Order: sequence, then C-alpha cells, then structure tokens
Amino acid sequence: MPSSDLYDLIYRRRDVRSEFNGEPIQPDALERVLAAAHAAPSVGHSQPWDFILVRDRQMRRQFQQHVESEREVFDQSLDPSRRETFSRIKVEGIMESTLGIVVTYDADRGGPHVLGRHAIADAGLYSVCLCIQNLWLAATAESLGIGWVSFYRESFLQELLGIPTSVRPVAWLCVGPVSRVQEKPDLERLGWRQKRPLHDAIHADRYQPGRD
Amino acid sequence: MPSSDLYDLIYRRRDVRSEFNGEPIQPDALERVLAAAHAAPSVGHSQPWDFILVRDRQMRRQFQQHVESEREVFDQSLDPSRRETFSRIKVEGIMESTLGIVVTYDADRGGPHVLGRHAIADAGLYSVCLCIQNLWLAATAESLGIGWVSFYRESFLQELLGIPTSVRPVAWLCVGPVSRVQEKPDLERLGWRQKRPLHDAIHADRYQPGRD
Repeated sequence: MPSSDLYDLIYRRRDVRSEFNGEPIQPDALERVLAAAHAAPSVGHSQPWDFILVRDRQMRRQFQQHVESEREVFDQSLDPSRRETFSRIKVEGIMESTLGIVVTYDADRGGPHVLGRHAIADAGLYSVCLCIQNLWLAATAESLGIGWVSFYRESFLQELLGIPTSVRPVAWLCVGPVSRVQEKPDLERLGWRQKRPLHDAIHADRYQPGRD
Repeated sequence: MPSSDLYDLIYRRRDVRSEFNGEPIQPDALERVLAAAHAAPSVGHSQPWDFILVRDRQMRRQFQQHVESEREVFDQSLDPSRRETFSRIKVEGIMESTLGIVVTYDADRGGPHVLGRHAIADAGLYSVCLCIQNLWLAATAESLGIGWVSFYRESFLQELLGIPTSVRPVAWLCVGPVSRVQEKPDLERLGWRQKRPLHDAIHADRYQPGRD
C-alpha cells in the first residue's frame, strides 16, 4: 500500500473524472473510508451526515443523464472561448466508477438545540463537508479515486434516491479504483483556471481586499 | 514528532477548548498547515477561501466578549436539565490559544461562471469547509490544537476584521500548542451527546428514514 502520510495524501489527492477503471472495492477498505468520514468533527456532535451507497446501474444511468443535461445548461452560459475550453473537460465518472456515495445533511439530527448552531444555521452543513474531506483523504490512502459531481439539482437526487425533502444531498461522490492519478488538477491541466498563490490568501489581523 | 499517519490523525483530532497553553507556534509549522489547507479541492478550482491570522489581543478580547453574550443566548433557549449540562461545557479558547485563524468565503472568486456551481449555489461554501478539514488534520500532525468557535454572528466578525459584506466568515479557529489531547470529544465526555453508530448512517441505493 502507498504512503498514508497526511501531507503526502493531501498533495496526491485529486478530483477524478477520467481515470476510474470500474474494478471492485475491497469491503474492508470501504469500511475504513466510511469510518474515517464518520469520525469527522460536527457542530454539537450532531453527526448530521448519512451515506447512500449507490450501486444500482439503472439509477446511476438516470443520474448521469441528468448531469449531462445540467452540463448543457452551464455550457450555454459561457462565452465562445470558455466554451471551447469547457468542451475538453469531463465533469463526471458516474458509470465508469465502481460506486456512487451520496452524502446527505439532516438538519433535524441532534434535536432543536444543536450546540453551536443557534447563530449560524449553516454550521451543520459545514460539518457534512468536513466529513467528506475525511472520506476523500481516506479513499486516497486506500488508492481509491473520488470524483465530486456537482452538476445536478438537489430535488432530482432527492426524488431518485427517496431522500425526504427535509434532508439535503450535499455531494455525489464517484468512488473506485483508478488506472492512474493525475499530478495536476484537471482544471489547471486543461487551462480552465490556474492556482492562486498561497500568500495572496493570508491576511494579518484584518482582511485586505483586492488580493484576488 | 508524533505519527503523521492519516487514520491515526483522523481519530486523534479533537475540537480543543480547555487545553491550549498559549505557547508560540513555529512559523514553518504554521506555513505547512496553511499550505495544506490551500491544497484542498474546490469547485471550479476557485479556491474561494482566505485566512485572517488574528494575533491582536484586543481584537480577540472583543470577539471573546461577543461569544460570551451568544453563549448566554443559547443558554436561555435550553430547558433546565440541558442547561445544567451546558454549564460544564467550555465553548471557546480564544484568549488561551496562540492565534485565531478566521477562514472566509468569497463567492465572487473565480468570476461569474464557476464550473460546477451553477446548480448548487453553496458549492463554494462546501469548498471552504474541505479546506478547513485539511487545516485541522495538518494542525493535528503538527501537534497543534484547533478549536472551532461558532457562537458568533457573522456580521460581528465582518465588522471586527474589516471583512466586506460580500465575503462570509465561515469559522473562527483557535490554534496553538496544547498541554494534552482528550481521548473523547468534550461533548461525549461531558454528557451532552453520544456518538451515533456508523452503520446507522449507511444506506443501500435508497435513503432509509428513521435511522437516527
């Protein structure tokens, strides 16, 4: 197994689109990945996440078709030169990956008085994202790729997977073994957007505008 | 330095309140932690986060007083038995920690057409949280504690730190060396809320309600 050193994983981790090979995931690896996600911090210890493991190919096909139509919506919003760049970018690996994991947020988990959420309603949603990053890094440690798909309407996923309207889907993650891992993010490699220098993002005591 | 194995860090990581000792942070350790945060995935490679390092003690004191008043607001919402439990729980280590890091979200970063955000407005906010979890795990690897404070109004922090209204503060993180690390989360240890079994959170193909 490759290194499980944190920094190594943080820099090796990629958002995978094209490299899934569809091979099986070892059940014990999947268990470790989900347990790592479940060990994330959460506001008021509410653990407001759930994981829907979508293996059914017909459901995945339906989702993939929906994503394709949303790709078209975005494409139509672009000017010609951006559209040309976008045409080279794959936005999902739903059918090529082994498994979809949909991570959801239940705002009712933890009762009406979640400690730490009274002033910031979104704090529960933040917790779900912390859990997703744990999952992503653990998957990287297990040599599994993750590809976060976000070209979808939440209501579509709610209907497809029987998610109540009070529970919000936060991510569809494509998960599975990969043929290889890209060194650079796809969007950098394919000319969509370059990396921002770290030091532009650091401010001392007060926010300094105009550093984008 | 202790182990930097991912799984070890994921389970060792705590949300620190009482254990900050105020000792200095090594600059190279802080640099590694911020670089790890900045290496997080983001929607459309927008990297919409910024880090405000708050060292000024007077500003921290003002924030601490605001948090104290919000603690009181939450306290008033509780019934007597929960209030009794809450009275034993410390919600911040603002003055005892070495540094505050405020992580913000700029929705305008990346222009009007962020790839992957047209259907899900919150996707940029999600990216900021992924960055925070990288930061948290890297801090743990550097033997630094992190304590996420969420008893505050966003407008208060915007005013205190000169953050434009178009930029949203997502977290105040207390950061610094600690005297020790608790084995269990404070909220479990102090009787606020117990851990949910992992397998209650896992669903096959469709969401199964009623598993809280």
